[in-house]
Amino acid sequence: MTTLSVVPAYAVPAPKAPLERTTIARRQVGAHDILIDIKFAGICHSDIHQANEGWGEAIFPMVPGHEIAGVVTQTGSAVTRYAVGDRVGVGCFVDSCRACEYCEQGLEQYCLNGTVATYNGREKNGEPTYGGYSTHLVVDENYAVRIPDALSLDVAAPLLCAGITTYSPLRHWNAGPGKKIAVIGLGGLGHMAVKLAHAMGAEVTVLSQTLRKKDDGLRLGADHYYATGDESVFSELRGRFDLVLSTVSAPLPIDAYLRLLKVDGAFVNVGAPEEPNSVNMFSLIAGRKSLAGSSIGGIRETQEMLDFCAEHGIGAEIELIRADQINEAYQRVVGSDVRYRFVIDTATI
Amino acid sequence: MTTLSVVPAYAVPAPKAPLERTTIARRQVGAHDILIDIKFAGICHSDIHQANEGWGEAIFPMVPGHEIAGVVTQTGSAVTRYAVGDRVGVGCFVDSCRACEYCEQGLEQYCLNGTVATYNGREKNGEPTYGGYSTHLVVDENYAVRIPDALSLDVAAPLLCAGITTYSPLRHWNAGPGKKIAVIGLGGLGHMAVKLAHAMGAEVTVLSQTLRKKDDGLRLGADHYYATGDESVFSELRGRFDLVLSTVSAPLPIDAYLRLLKVDGAFVNVGAPEEPNSVNMFSLIAGRKSLAGSSIGGIRETQEMLDFCAEHGIGAEIELIRADQINEAYQRVVGSDVRYRFVIDTATI
Repeated sequence: MTTLSVVPAYAVPAPKAPLERTTIARRQVGAHDILIDIKFAGICHSDIHQANEGWGEAIFPMVPGHEIAGVVTQTGSAVTRYAVGDRVGVGCFVDSCRACEYCEQGLEQYCLNGTVATYNGREKNGEPTYGGYSTHLVVDENYAVRIPDALSLDVAAPLLCAGITTYSPLRHWNAGPGKKIAVIGLGGLGHMAVKLAHAMGAEVTVLSQTLRKKDDGLRLGADHYYATGDESVFSELRGRFDLVLSTVSAPLPIDAYLRLLKVDGAFVNVGAPEEPNSVNMFSLIAGRKSLAGSSIGGIRETQEMLDFCAEHGIGAEIELIRADQINEAYQRVVGSDVRYRFVIDTATI
Repeated sequence: MTTLSVVPAYAVPAPKAPLERTTIARRQVGAHDILIDIKFAGICHSDIHQANEGWGEAIFPMVPGHEIAGVVTQTGSAVTRYAVGDRVGVGCFVDSCRACEYCEQGLEQYCLNGTVATYNGREKNGEPTYGGYSTHLVVDENYAVRIPDALSLDVAAPLLCAGITTYSPLRHWNAGPGKKIAVIGLGGLGHMAVKLAHAMGAEVTVLSQTLRKKDDGLRLGADHYYATGDESVFSELRGRFDLVLSTVSAPLPIDAYLRLLKVDGAFVNVGAPEEPNSVNMFSLIAGRKSLAGSSIGGIRETQEMLDFCAEHGIGAEIELIRADQINEAYQRVVGSDVRYRFVIDTATI
């Protein structure tokens, strides 16, 4: 039961190469580990960035996937939080130093010694990590979260990245009743931001390049929807928002968006453009504004987010695919042609 | 007593031209106005930026000066806050709409309808404003502040811009005991930031290009002093600060400075570079950091700052000059050759 297992997976063999079916070794189940039978894995745009080495040198073969939902099928001798049969999720990291000031505050994503990424990372012993495009995963119980019964596993999977990545800054920058929030982009992250901010009680505006997804946006909870291709929108919305949350990874005219903020407003980036942006300091000085960023969320907050989603009946909008459709799905993600998250049924791997 | 007065002043006749002695007309003292016998006026780097049209088209002739300290010599019929003989100051603005949400919150500097700048601005009736390089000023009593008796007028003058511009962000970003604050630049703004942050109880580090002013920095209240010309400083100080306050107007390698912040730290710009800066969003995302700006302060907070300075015995470090030395002083400000603020003795105008 505790020997190294060889399991099927879909991997990127080399930078920018298509994914192929292969096998990988998962570590034996240690005292603090749980073995997860992966049921669903979401496809995140960052999977593609990393497969293409868009964010720097990466480790190959790469098994992407950090939006993982499954069921516990084995527990280590010292495991206390989970039992066989429990429904669990794993997000963007599977370990951290557990000792620094940020780990102690539950901000493991900002661990001073570096979190261990769920894939394209290295365990403390130097072994590469492999992600969720696979049938099984072994993970320390402290880096898994419980998926409430009210959430289906398929629509829960994308919450582990797209959900927490938007939930965390919305909470940190106090989205709630009386607050006006703009969400840039209605993709995987953006559609979660709309649902979550609406559930938190904020007034939500989507800023998208076109009005193509307007009906969806309003259905998902947006109060307003504007096409940023129309320059007059920037005049109309001047000084309107407490928070502008950018979920896109394309470079944006930051100064133009900063003008949409109220005094003390924040423009927060959770999309991750590969190129640096230009910003005029006067855009920040005139109104004590902030340009900020936010990265995923800690384990405690991820659990809080899942519980919030269960309470409010929030899951991701997904297109369920077979494993042999992953390469096609990547093309469609790059072309913004997905409503709103591809999720792999891992039974097809 | 209430007729328009012609008073002496030093003015910039045209963009980039040297200042010359001239005369200007001050409005009659209205019901809500006070007439101030100006005693001292500080020279702010922004005077030079505006005289050179570095921040855009300006109004000429220009009488700069928004660090004004003097004595009330006449009061309008409806004035209630000041009496003849009161020691008062005027800062960067002399009016605002008084009705918008920001004016109502005491954040007149962010007035939605535009504050009326003390010089290089226009009154609501369209008349140009003239600043403190003059012997007299007429201002609405609501846009003056009281200079406590414990502060000499000469060292108080620079507090009206350099003092409030640094005090306001230090308060807003919670400088105080247990907080580590870096101040970039030890000039007019920077030396005030050091004094104020130290008095607030923060641990203060100066980041300057060289160690030339190190002895001064430590004497003014800095706990540490580093030369940023030494690249190793950026490694040594990585992740150190809660707040980095930039008081310089030269473009900076923002990403390098963002690495000096703790998680949730803020880099706040009060210096105003004329050119846009480049910033990599990953520098903000990795640590939920903010790049922000702050502009002077409201009337209420300016009064609070003066009272704080009086309580802590804080004035600016000044070099008192005659009016006929202003042009030379401008050259020296541009060359960073002033410790730490030139103040004009307006009796010499």
